[in-house]
Amino acid sequence: MVIAIQPGKSTIGFIGTGVMGLSMARNLMKAGYGLIVFNRTRQRALPLLEEGARWAASPAKAAREADAVITIVGFPKDVEEVYIGEKGLFSAARPGTLLIDMTTSSPLLAKRLYEEGHARNLPVLDAPVSGGDRGAREATLSIMAGGDESAFHAALPLFHALGKNVILQGGPGAGQHTKMVNQIAIASGMIGVCEALAYAGRAGLDPLRVLDSISGGAAGSWSLSNYGPRILQGDFKPGFYVKHFVKDMSIALDSAREMGLDVPGLELALKLYQRLVDAGKGDEGTQALFKIFQE
Amino acid sequence: MVIAIQPGKSTIGFIGTGVMGLSMARNLMKAGYGLIVFNRTRQRALPLLEEGARWAASPAKAAREADAVITIVGFPKDVEEVYIGEKGLFSAARPGTLLIDMTTSSPLLAKRLYEEGHARNLPVLDAPVSGGDRGAREATLSIMAGGDESAFHAALPLFHALGKNVILQGGPGAGQHTKMVNQIAIASGMIGVCEALAYAGRAGLDPLRVLDSISGGAAGSWSLSNYGPRILQGDFKPGFYVKHFVKDMSIALDSAREMGLDVPGLELALKLYQRLVDAGKGDEGTQALFKIFQE
Repeated sequence: MVIAIQPGKSTIGFIGTGVMGLSMARNLMKAGYGLIVFNRTRQRALPLLEEGARWAASPAKAAREADAVITIVGFPKDVEEVYIGEKGLFSAARPGTLLIDMTTSSPLLAKRLYEEGHARNLPVLDAPVSGGDRGAREATLSIMAGGDESAFHAALPLFHALGKNVILQGGPGAGQHTKMVNQIAIASGMIGVCEALAYAGRAGLDPLRVLDSISGGAAGSWSLSNYGPRILQGDFKPGFYVKHFVKDMSIALDSAREMGLDVPGLELALKLYQRLVDAGKGDEGTQALFKIFQE
Repeated sequence: MVIAIQPGKSTIGFIGTGVMGLSMARNLMKAGYGLIVFNRTRQRALPLLEEGARWAASPAKAAREADAVITIVGFPKDVEEVYIGEKGLFSAARPGTLLIDMTTSSPLLAKRLYEEGHARNLPVLDAPVSGGDRGAREATLSIMAGGDESAFHAALPLFHALGKNVILQGGPGAGQHTKMVNQIAIASGMIGVCEALAYAGRAGLDPLRVLDSISGGAAGSWSLSNYGPRILQGDFKPGFYVKHFVKDMSIALDSAREMGLDVPGLELALKLYQRLVDAGKGDEGTQALFKIFQE
């Protein structure tokens, strides 16, 4: 049994009010849900409290009063703490409370949470997103879910308040695996974009004119069209942080190795991005990879 | 001085009637140009001869009667032979004859041909294309040109009969450099696409459903949208040959090294594609890179 979710009636626990979480929580309130929020740093949740959300002093306290709980935190170890920790969700949620982890996290951990939740009659979904801060703000996220169909259907009203392209990809972990597929494709793609633009500059071409020749053809990609112009303007502000991408690629690489799959492109991307982190550029946007080719 | 080009009046020499050249030559005839063609293997030019083109027994013989000559052959050494060889274009073309190499070839060679042409009062353009066999057939190629503006303007009626996105990228070699930028972006991008799909399969996901989640977002690319579905259908037929891509990447890598630019993504892609060639898969399409991740 899953507790039914209805705007105007249901209270949603929301754990993690970072850049993504803040906008997502706000969209749930706009859709008519009562919100009870927890964040490690309370300061960051203040805008939501001013807009009518209630504060919970721990994940457990949020879970106790919620009909469903959404989590979007940092690293897999944070997810683990939020679900399994002493003041975690599992310790306090009523049976039937839907728990949805939207953090990009480990597929193996997603399966483990599903199973431990199942044993407590707590349906757990993994449902990471893509679409970045803008997608979070504009409720146009792509949501890739894994878990039971019944839980997925119960969660749909929430998902539709947060995103547009909502797909159940399979059983527990399938959402995280799908997000890994997404990040693997981006990883090598970003190398291609940055090497290509570095080559253009080195060859003395006008890189913007080069983009006019190549963006619409077989070399075209979201990364080229969106990051290319920013790179050429020297704009390395984060849409998506280098440090978070390194986290995602590390999870993907571990996961690929567990499955016995060689992913040399991903390995190379992780190595290059790690160099950026080591150079103190973890808080820049992923397009800062270009700097590696300027050295 | 450049000999002016006019449909209905001008005769165009056309050297190289492979998959791309055949369609391009046909489009020039449709646009009203007289054609005189040469190809190493005469057999391959027969369809054009049946449609009204004349045959030349060598590049020199084609050049002698032409107001402009377009070349699209295989490797840089073939380009060299066609221009500088004993029966090459330079030996026979009248002063002012516009010579346009549309082969994807070496930027350094393009500069050399420009200079040797210039000394003979033969304007030379490098103008490689993207858009593949389909772009060639439908006259929607992207044309990236390098050379003098006057030559470029003289060539425009021909380019507009062949493609849509026609841009002078700079002086001699700039067209080839731009094509290299294009290929560098594709090279790593293809690794990303193939690794991502291999991961999806290994993780037990439904890869077509995964594409529904990720194709429209930040992982989206022409390669993912066009090759993804073909890969999943086991269709490795060539749109663009592995062996030709290896040629292009080799030129790009040499060129990057000459400029002192490290391109580890391109190096990795070339290594992986070379493995395909070594395994006898040079005549498959570039999406066959996926097979590397199935081993």
